[in-house]
Amino acid sequence: MKYTIGIDFGTLSARGVLVNSVSGEVVAEASYEYPHAVMDSALPSGKTLPEGYALQHPLDYKEALVLITERLRSAVSADDIVGIGFDFTACTLLPIDERGEPLCLRDEFADDPHAYVKLWKHHGAEQYAREITELAESRGESWLSLFGGKISCEWAIPKILETLRSSRSVFDAAARFTEAGDYISYLLTGEHTAAISFAGYKWLYVSGEGFPTNDYFEALDPALSGIIGSKICDNVIFADGSAGKLSSTAAEMLGLREGIAVALPVIDAHAAMPALDVMREGELMLILGTSGCQILNAREKINIYGTAGYVYGGIIPGLATYEAGQASFGDNFDWFVRSSVPEEYTREARERGISVHTLLRERASKLAVGQSGLLALDWLNGNRSILVDPKLSGLVLGITLATKPEEIYRALIEAVVFGTKVILDTYEQAGIAIGKITAAGGIALKDEMMMQIYSDVLNKDIYVSARSQAGAYGSAEAAMAAAGIYESIERAAATLAVPAARVYHPIAGNVEKYAVLFAEYKRLHDYFGKENLLMHRLRAMKCE
Amino acid sequence: MKYTIGIDFGTLSARGVLVNSVSGEVVAEASYEYPHAVMDSALPSGKTLPEGYALQHPLDYKEALVLITERLRSAVSADDIVGIGFDFTACTLLPIDERGEPLCLRDEFADDPHAYVKLWKHHGAEQYAREITELAESRGESWLSLFGGKISCEWAIPKILETLRSSRSVFDAAARFTEAGDYISYLLTGEHTAAISFAGYKWLYVSGEGFPTNDYFEALDPALSGIIGSKICDNVIFADGSAGKLSSTAAEMLGLREGIAVALPVIDAHAAMPALDVMREGELMLILGTSGCQILNAREKINIYGTAGYVYGGIIPGLATYEAGQASFGDNFDWFVRSSVPEEYTREARERGISVHTLLRERASKLAVGQSGLLALDWLNGNRSILVDPKLSGLVLGITLATKPEEIYRALIEAVVFGTKVILDTYEQAGIAIGKITAAGGIALKDEMMMQIYSDVLNKDIYVSARSQAGAYGSAEAAMAAAGIYESIERAAATLAVPAARVYHPIAGNVEKYAVLFAEYKRLHDYFGKENLLMHRLRAMKCE
Repeated sequence: MKYTIGIDFGTLSARGVLVNSVSGEVVAEASYEYPHAVMDSALPSGKTLPEGYALQHPLDYKEALVLITERLRSAVSADDIVGIGFDFTACTLLPIDERGEPLCLRDEFADDPHAYVKLWKHHGAEQYAREITELAESRGESWLSLFGGKISCEWAIPKILETLRSSRSVFDAAARFTEAGDYISYLLTGEHTAAISFAGYKWLYVSGEGFPTNDYFEALDPALSGIIGSKICDNVIFADGSAGKLSSTAAEMLGLREGIAVALPVIDAHAAMPALDVMREGELMLILGTSGCQILNAREKINIYGTAGYVYGGIIPGLATYEAGQASFGDNFDWFVRSSVPEEYTREARERGISVHTLLRERASKLAVGQSGLLALDWLNGNRSILVDPKLSGLVLGITLATKPEEIYRALIEAVVFGTKVILDTYEQAGIAIGKITAAGGIALKDEMMMQIYSDVLNKDIYVSARSQAGAYGSAEAAMAAAGIYESIERAAATLAVPAARVYHPIAGNVEKYAVLFAEYKRLHDYFGKENLLMHRLRAMKCE
Repeated sequence: MKYTIGIDFGTLSARGVLVNSVSGEVVAEASYEYPHAVMDSALPSGKTLPEGYALQHPLDYKEALVLITERLRSAVSADDIVGIGFDFTACTLLPIDERGEPLCLRDEFADDPHAYVKLWKHHGAEQYAREITELAESRGESWLSLFGGKISCEWAIPKILETLRSSRSVFDAAARFTEAGDYISYLLTGEHTAAISFAGYKWLYVSGEGFPTNDYFEALDPALSGIIGSKICDNVIFADGSAGKLSSTAAEMLGLREGIAVALPVIDAHAAMPALDVMREGELMLILGTSGCQILNAREKINIYGTAGYVYGGIIPGLATYEAGQASFGDNFDWFVRSSVPEEYTREARERGISVHTLLRERASKLAVGQSGLLALDWLNGNRSILVDPKLSGLVLGITLATKPEEIYRALIEAVVFGTKVILDTYEQAGIAIGKITAAGGIALKDEMMMQIYSDVLNKDIYVSARSQAGAYGSAEAAMAAAGIYESIERAAATLAVPAARVYHPIAGNVEKYAVLFAEYKRLHDYFGKENLLMHRLRAMKCE
């Protein structure tokens, strides 16, 4: 019997599965919470961080890799494990030295935030993202439109420019800036690679054209001259390749066989696609996690302003995979539960042994569409698509003296769903038809009210996959293809696919009311997103 | 020694003082909470009420009158008590029969909400207020502009029309519709009167012209023909008059001497004016209670759209007293504490033995102006001035994943102060200069942060009166004038005036930042108040 390991490196923890490549059965699971979690207020030394910072510690990843693999491999004979795959959040970037050691481990940089991992949601590079976009516009760079016309501060080049401008010593000491995912590949194979999933979505790499020209980098800052091929790895590996073979060092560290297949990593959000069998044209996957993500397969190659763009053959050979996202999703509801729910509610939840989320959902699900009189904007962490504006913020409107917490909670849910509709409408208006929609993530299985709202607002069926740990599972499937057990990842996905746990159908009366509410949402969206940039001005005052 | 009694009938309780007319000393205090409080969800029978209803029980008032007087009079010899004065919320209206008995006491009407007292904040008459305004507009009624161009659903005629249209049997059984304040006068004197303060601000009565014509009432509804002088009392009494003398029945009921002076009642918000010595031209009183009120003395007679208008000689002979208001003030902060403050905060407040308001204030006062990045609209109970629109609702904007409860609390405070500035700017733009500003109400004494915000936003000194129970005290002063101890209420006010407890001066840096934030508030105010009536549409959906 042959097994593969899949590990999903998320924002707060990594989760791994060991999968039987014939039956598809998950024979072991393991997870590991990062001890340093997200460092958004202080470094381990106690040094405080500016607002918008979100850093991580690279040793947490290595520990997760070792401990999870150790627990998984003990379930079977290590000889039967033929491959390992993984996915990672992105752009999650760190500087490493010549020997591949993260710079933050050096005493001299222990107090320098730029020596640590900048997590995907690190928002310290806003001004640099603007600079990069403006320079590309003024030079008429052809690649700009491929990335939605606006470079996000969450991507790699802004984060690197931030380091250059804020900490020259870290910049100079860095032999490379690497995606955390490519860093894991390096730990496993001993080779420096740049997986197309990261390069194509987050590093401005265009298939068939490469990275932006050296002229562009030089114009951006002379210190960036020659960066491609030096501090930025240009060994880009495509979807049908693999990252390499497990090195003897890594085999020893993990207790696995030397030379087994290491699958090419992908962005965590995309890893679930094979697990959910979202591998065909027109199929869309909704990722409902800390943040939200919409991933769509299409044959068309169209540049759409405000999305993260697409990568052709980045996931599935022959198809363009488009990505768009919402910078906060579950984070919005967690904020609400943390800061806006009165004692009476938290006490009831405790007494009944349920979560506050469950209690709020229970009450909110009794509300009819429009009954609360509330409307919200979901930009508590800015807007990634389609406004690409991290300086936007959230809004709740329609509050009266009788407004209840569950009403606001529901309005926040409706707002993220409206935000999703704006994105899907943008695809459809650009001429890309959307077929089957599959939702993934724990919330999709837990929150029936929310999934019905998705169905009603989008006026489409929503399939909720029964597959748990879809990211890790998809990574294990990628390892099966890399090990040659299946001829392709699509074949692995189709063979091991499971039926949906549930399908939500639109309810006609709700569809009609939500159409009215969505039109109001869209008007607010355009007003505060384009006409009256009040949220920018308030944020500027805040930073004064 | 001569003493007078003053009783302030508020929204949830009545409070009384017994005052020495020479020294001004308060020699006894008493209060009484209404057992039925505000009935906004059900009648005593359990019958549920529609949203927006706010009813009271008239027996609560009578009990308050008897019990408070009993406690006050025991402090001195009853022979030394020479007058009684009182004030009441308005328009707080009830139907009574020929014998002066409230209709809700009859078994047949026990289940009919229209037989009860409609409290000032009862919002069941919105559509009737619109009908009354539209008819007045179409007929070109000259009085319309005197009342700000738009009749509020909180006033008397809309509430009476609501009864006519919703409960014909109550309308027919009503010998009179009376202000609760005039009902107290009736209980004390046995005479039916209509005090100018109520008639002039809430019943469309214009000094020198009278009520709207019978033609108008007939056009509104034939059933209203002849209503003035029948179901609506036309025995209007002016500021320099008194309500009459204490009847023998009332003297027996209260244990006071028959024939002592009963002062003319005024709206509760105005009663504090003599107590705070806000009796001169250009002086403005801010009432900070459940709702907010701005009361301004001026020599000019100008019609200003969106205010409640003015009554010439309604309080002070020779001066016009203008009133404007905010439909919720303390109610906003109470809503927030009730429904949006997490357990961690309520627990800390409990452990430290302080109120949640105090805890939030303590934290909010550490924030710099603009630091939260939040901006709110204060319309949680609609907007009374200057938009006169009960269908507006509240908004909080600028929310991020790091937003804290104390930041929203402060934004709600800033919003009501910005709302006050809109009103004051409206007066000044109309040509009425505003001089000294005095704040009254418990919040003014307790909340230093808020008073500093008033000073900074308005860029004016704010005087906080040391006088507690200002409404009841002012009513006792009115009784002194009615009893002839002072030649006028202005003289009583000036003689017994006390120095301010504290004066707040604008802080230059804050003034500048608040000017920026106010401009943003005003833009939002105009956008949601005039351009995009989203709040109306959401409310309409809510009611479907």
